[in-house]
Amino acid sequence: MKPFLDEDFLLENQTAKTLYHDYAKEMAIIDYHNHLPPQEIADDKNFPNITAIWLHGDHYKWRAMRTLGIREHFITGAATDAEKFQKWAEVVPFTARNPLFHWTHLELKRYFGVSEILNASSGPGIYKHASDLLTTPEFSTRSLLRKMKVEVVCTTDDPADDLRYHQQVYREGFTTRMLPAFRPDKAILIERDGYMEYISNLAEVSNRSIDTVDDLLEVLQSRVKYFSENGCKLADHGLDYIFASDYTEKEVNDIFQKKRSGSFITREEALKFQSHVLFELGKMYASEGWVQQFHLGALRNANTRMLRELGPDTGFDSIGDYPQAQSLAYFLNRLDNENKLAKTVLYNLNPADNEIIASMIGNFNDGSVRGKMQFGSGWWFLDQKDGMERQINALSNIGLLSCFIGMLTDSRSFLSFPRHEYFRRILCNLIGRDVHNGELPDDTKWLGSLVQDICYNNARHYFDFE
Amino acid sequence: MKPFLDEDFLLENQTAKTLYHDYAKEMAIIDYHNHLPPQEIADDKNFPNITAIWLHGDHYKWRAMRTLGIREHFITGAATDAEKFQKWAEVVPFTARNPLFHWTHLELKRYFGVSEILNASSGPGIYKHASDLLTTPEFSTRSLLRKMKVEVVCTTDDPADDLRYHQQVYREGFTTRMLPAFRPDKAILIERDGYMEYISNLAEVSNRSIDTVDDLLEVLQSRVKYFSENGCKLADHGLDYIFASDYTEKEVNDIFQKKRSGSFITREEALKFQSHVLFELGKMYASEGWVQQFHLGALRNANTRMLRELGPDTGFDSIGDYPQAQSLAYFLNRLDNENKLAKTVLYNLNPADNEIIASMIGNFNDGSVRGKMQFGSGWWFLDQKDGMERQINALSNIGLLSCFIGMLTDSRSFLSFPRHEYFRRILCNLIGRDVHNGELPDDTKWLGSLVQDICYNNARHYFDFE
Amino acid sequence: MKPFLDEDFLLENQTAKTLYHDYAKEMAIIDYHNHLPPQEIADDKNFPNITAIWLHGDHYKWRAMRTLGIREHFITGAATDAEKFQKWAEVVPFTARNPLFHWTHLELKRYFGVSEILNASSGPGIYKHASDLLTTPEFSTRSLLRKMKVEVVCTTDDPADDLRYHQQVYREGFTTRMLPAFRPDKAILIERDGYMEYISNLAEVSNRSIDTVDDLLEVLQSRVKYFSENGCKLADHGLDYIFASDYTEKEVNDIFQKKRSGSFITREEALKFQSHVLFELGKMYASEGWVQQFHLGALRNANTRMLRELGPDTGFDSIGDYPQAQSLAYFLNRLDNENKLAKTVLYNLNPADNEIIASMIGNFNDGSVRGKMQFGSGWWFLDQKDGMERQINALSNIGLLSCFIGMLTDSRSFLSFPRHEYFRRILCNLIGRDVHNGELPDDTKWLGSLVQDICYNNARHYFDFE
Repeated sequence: MKPFLDEDFLLENQTAKTLYHDYAKEMAIIDYHNHLPPQEIADDKNFPNITAIWLHGDHYKWRAMRTLGIREHFITGAATDAEKFQKWAEVVPFTARNPLFHWTHLELKRYFGVSEILNASSGPGIYKHASDLLTTPEFSTRSLLRKMKVEVVCTTDDPADDLRYHQQVYREGFTTRMLPAFRPDKAILIERDGYMEYISNLAEVSNRSIDTVDDLLEVLQSRVKYFSENGCKLADHGLDYIFASDYTEKEVNDIFQKKRSGSFITREEALKFQSHVLFELGKMYASEGWVQQFHLGALRNANTRMLRELGPDTGFDSIGDYPQAQSLAYFLNRLDNENKLAKTVLYNLNPADNEIIASMIGNFNDGSVRGKMQFGSGWWFLDQKDGMERQINALSNIGLLSCFIGMLTDSRSFLSFPRHEYFRRILCNLIGRDVHNGELPDDTKWLGSLVQDICYNNARHYFDFE
Repeated sequence: MKPFLDEDFLLENQTAKTLYHDYAKEMAIIDYHNHLPPQEIADDKNFPNITAIWLHGDHYKWRAMRTLGIREHFITGAATDAEKFQKWAEVVPFTARNPLFHWTHLELKRYFGVSEILNASSGPGIYKHASDLLTTPEFSTRSLLRKMKVEVVCTTDDPADDLRYHQQVYREGFTTRMLPAFRPDKAILIERDGYMEYISNLAEVSNRSIDTVDDLLEVLQSRVKYFSENGCKLADHGLDYIFASDYTEKEVNDIFQKKRSGSFITREEALKFQSHVLFELGKMYASEGWVQQFHLGALRNANTRMLRELGPDTGFDSIGDYPQAQSLAYFLNRLDNENKLAKTVLYNLNPADNEIIASMIGNFNDGSVRGKMQFGSGWWFLDQKDGMERQINALSNIGLLSCFIGMLTDSRSFLSFPRHEYFRRILCNLIGRDVHNGELPDDTKWLGSLVQDICYNNARHYFDFE
Repeated sequence: MKPFLDEDFLLENQTAKTLYHDYAKEMAIIDYHNHLPPQEIADDKNFPNITAIWLHGDHYKWRAMRTLGIREHFITGAATDAEKFQKWAEVVPFTARNPLFHWTHLELKRYFGVSEILNASSGPGIYKHASDLLTTPEFSTRSLLRKMKVEVVCTTDDPADDLRYHQQVYREGFTTRMLPAFRPDKAILIERDGYMEYISNLAEVSNRSIDTVDDLLEVLQSRVKYFSENGCKLADHGLDYIFASDYTEKEVNDIFQKKRSGSFITREEALKFQSHVLFELGKMYASEGWVQQFHLGALRNANTRMLRELGPDTGFDSIGDYPQAQSLAYFLNRLDNENKLAKTVLYNLNPADNEIIASMIGNFNDGSVRGKMQFGSGWWFLDQKDGMERQINALSNIGLLSCFIGMLTDSRSFLSFPRHEYFRRILCNLIGRDVHNGELPDDTKWLGSLVQDICYNNARHYFDFE
């Protein structure tokens, strides 16, 4: 029997162990998509205790606590940080088999040297131990990134952002490159509350008026340029599904004027508008040489009572079952036809779509760029062993694993970087298992280089981080 | 090599064996959803032979026989019970890898002490042996339930039912509690043949007229009360998908009047009507403190020729691929917004929806009740090892396995209770495998208590069977 | 550790090995669906080099090369055959974990006795070795079929085809029976470019005019008869999803007249027309005693730029996520109601539909023919170990594996027949694993006969190839 979480965690045979320890482990980390707050890196912030860095803002943990019948008081409410941590400690044993159980103990071990199981009785001691460490310089945000050999982080930024923190970090010469990524959802999703307020804000930032769709697109173009000047290499979109309605530019502008006048926009009109803006953005990304990312398939804000109480991104989202294939093919094809299809990463939230995505990317891999179209690593609810294995296997069976750009944290937390280790162990184990079973030749050097490509080299070349 | 179906069946390592034999096996059974005929328990019926208890009414076996080219004569037709059994015996070896093969031999072993493989040559002997036993008092329906330590059975009952058999069994003080469950499909599905006849019947039972939708809802409310008075704790619905159309009460009543006048109801009208009735029922369940169950995703009565010949539930249903997420979210959210969302169990028939459901429940687990929203165990076509493992894994990865209320037979047969054993072995094996692989700590006491919760304690608390 | 691709490739325990080596291996091959060019068999063609037989026309390999950034020049372009092979050789190591990696080395070993890994350095030697062999009589198309013990091949033929090559091969008495299969997609898909030209061609071949839908159906009926006279036993259709719109015959004929007059046909009209023709064809097949096959769920020609440059079937197709269940049930039921439902094989391209199909076939398995309705083996993107295992497992869990007609190559290449071996190893391994785990009795003779049925006997009886 293997001990829990030992040095060979998730590695079931010798080849897997060799691939991980001799090839994967040493590679630096390129975290090309996450939600780290740029200011906290710029400020080289220290957190006052482990609740502040670990529980504030982590809706995965919140969901688990609510499922176990913990009141909101101890989750997002007025309880003290020590009380909240203790509740979480009590909950941890009941998360067995959920990724939270692995993440929790991996993070405690890697950052704080804690090997105990977190539970009601170990909770107070671990709270004190970890919180004490967190106030030392070795646990500032920048120190945490250095400790994990993070070479690049790409944050997720609004087009209206002035990127001052990225500029500050660049000026100060921090060893981890912090680059912005362009996430224009608020400029696209015309049905959302506050859309026109957002447009006003964008106009103000750009120091000009936005009276037409063309104005909007010009402003977005100027923001794309501004992001590029600040080192941006990629865009990101979080959409239920790709918008691919037919429209005329006149229709789209009329819809925009309706919206400006405060009239109701139908779902059909919204889709036309959004299809236009998304398509035009896609062309901008291609011209800029960026990578475009699409996170598809979430069903967001399903619980409107809790949305009113706590706002978005608080743990009340789930997986949608929207059709994805046809609109995605239509959109990518239309860009390809104008020779304006940027390098693209597609992330699906519904694992039933894995093979849809794994085969879709092949339609637009045209020999121009190695691995031009990417099937993104298991995302959100799928960021767990089973989800990652299914993504890796679908990609292997239907596309080419060797071209994969690998893992990203997609996290808001500075303690999430062991997820790269988790991914790498899973990857090495799948390959090791194939060798062990005679399904791959026993050639560790070759397979080790394939592993290193997926862990680091492919992303570095793909995003031009050189 | 492991012998077939030995005492460590499905248990692949020592931890799995310990968890099953020392923790799971001893737990009593709470079978909170099945289709046992209440009268057969009230009558403490004995079956004349094994065909009567095992083949009459088992459409799983019928489908297998038809697939193998057996004529209906030997399935639902005029052949003798001995002939039918012999045909089934001949078929059994050809069901290898289907759950029928395991169920068959597990049931023969647990109830009749038979360890032989059922096939053409062993058929006659087993027929005689089992049929002889079935006529003894130790094989009456109540004896069979006692033998399996069944503490509670919840049958599935029509709102018009007078529950006389439940009352009889209660009066007589049988050790297994037999409780009714409220299944109002016939009052909801307005497009089905015989809908108005059913409404008349319901009116008659309630000793009042049903002239409007409000009348119908009042009658349903009174039946809910009546069921509660008779110990009912849960409702159940068998629906293609959740009805979640927008409607006004006036529209819905007009549709009901159209139906009463014999006019044709469009699909859109039916959905409006059904959405209203389902929503109002949901509120009643919440007020009553019941659990509501939804069995979603069957494509029923696909073969109308056989439907005409044999009626419904005879083996001509399959798995549908209806979109589920949006209507389900809409319905649950609307109830939640009125603070009228009852505890809820969601069962999906299409395994491609597993992750949809596993993530959906998290949207409404709000900390008020431990495990308030449940992802139901693998159902119907998914009630097999692979189906159960996928449900358990999806729930583990995306929700919390520890809060799961576990297994139910959903069966019409008094010989189906070893399916709890089957489930428990699978559950213990998955956890044992994780321990063996170092993915869970080797703490049998803790994991044993988690197993006992899932096998028994969680259901007992969830349904308030105390 | 198992050596790569040794004689026990994919066989993980002794039972699996015994089942494969003692039962499966010896069985002849019935390849009841492929895309071999009949003329190349009639001509007993020799290929000039391995590129000609292996890379020309293989869009699986093309996709992999494009994904790795290889220019079209070396794929479908003007590069020499030697250059193209060398590019492929360089690519092969980067296909690790894709079925191409296994297929490549299995084919090199079985046909050419090559045990080396194909890569940049081994490429030139293997090119010369294999190409030299290919010019010998032992490597003509007929020799290749004999070498693999191929008893029957069913090609895929247009209704307008005169079947001269099938007739020639029949006259000449080749040991492998080459039978035609009827694939009338071009006569059905009214929206496709060139539809009316195709209808003219069909009229010409039939030596009569086609002025109405009834004319078209009469011509198709006469072609069905002609195919039957030439030994045809099965039809095939490649459709996004089954067409099952309601229509009147008058509507359908009006749509046909609109098309003839050059008017635009709406999607709704196309579906009506196609529903009619498909239904009428289904009845013809039933009358003829044929098997009808449906390949459902591809999203074809997704990249119109490459379609313009290279034409269809060049590697720019992917997996669709169309709803399948309701239209399929409707279509099959309508045929069944007229007692005109032919034996049917359903192939799905989206593995999320596996359980849909596995359960759908049970709706129409009515006891009339053993295994009348079939869930076809993993197809195209799913023709790989994981895809085949999932198909076999879904079929086992929800239907009966014992009635399965097993593998087919669906290939354009004369070197693809080791895919039967690959399938057989996977099948034997799954059964062997169950025996090893105590989930099936250790009765090799019985399980060996089940394996032989799936590898050969079932197909032979099902298609009446006796």
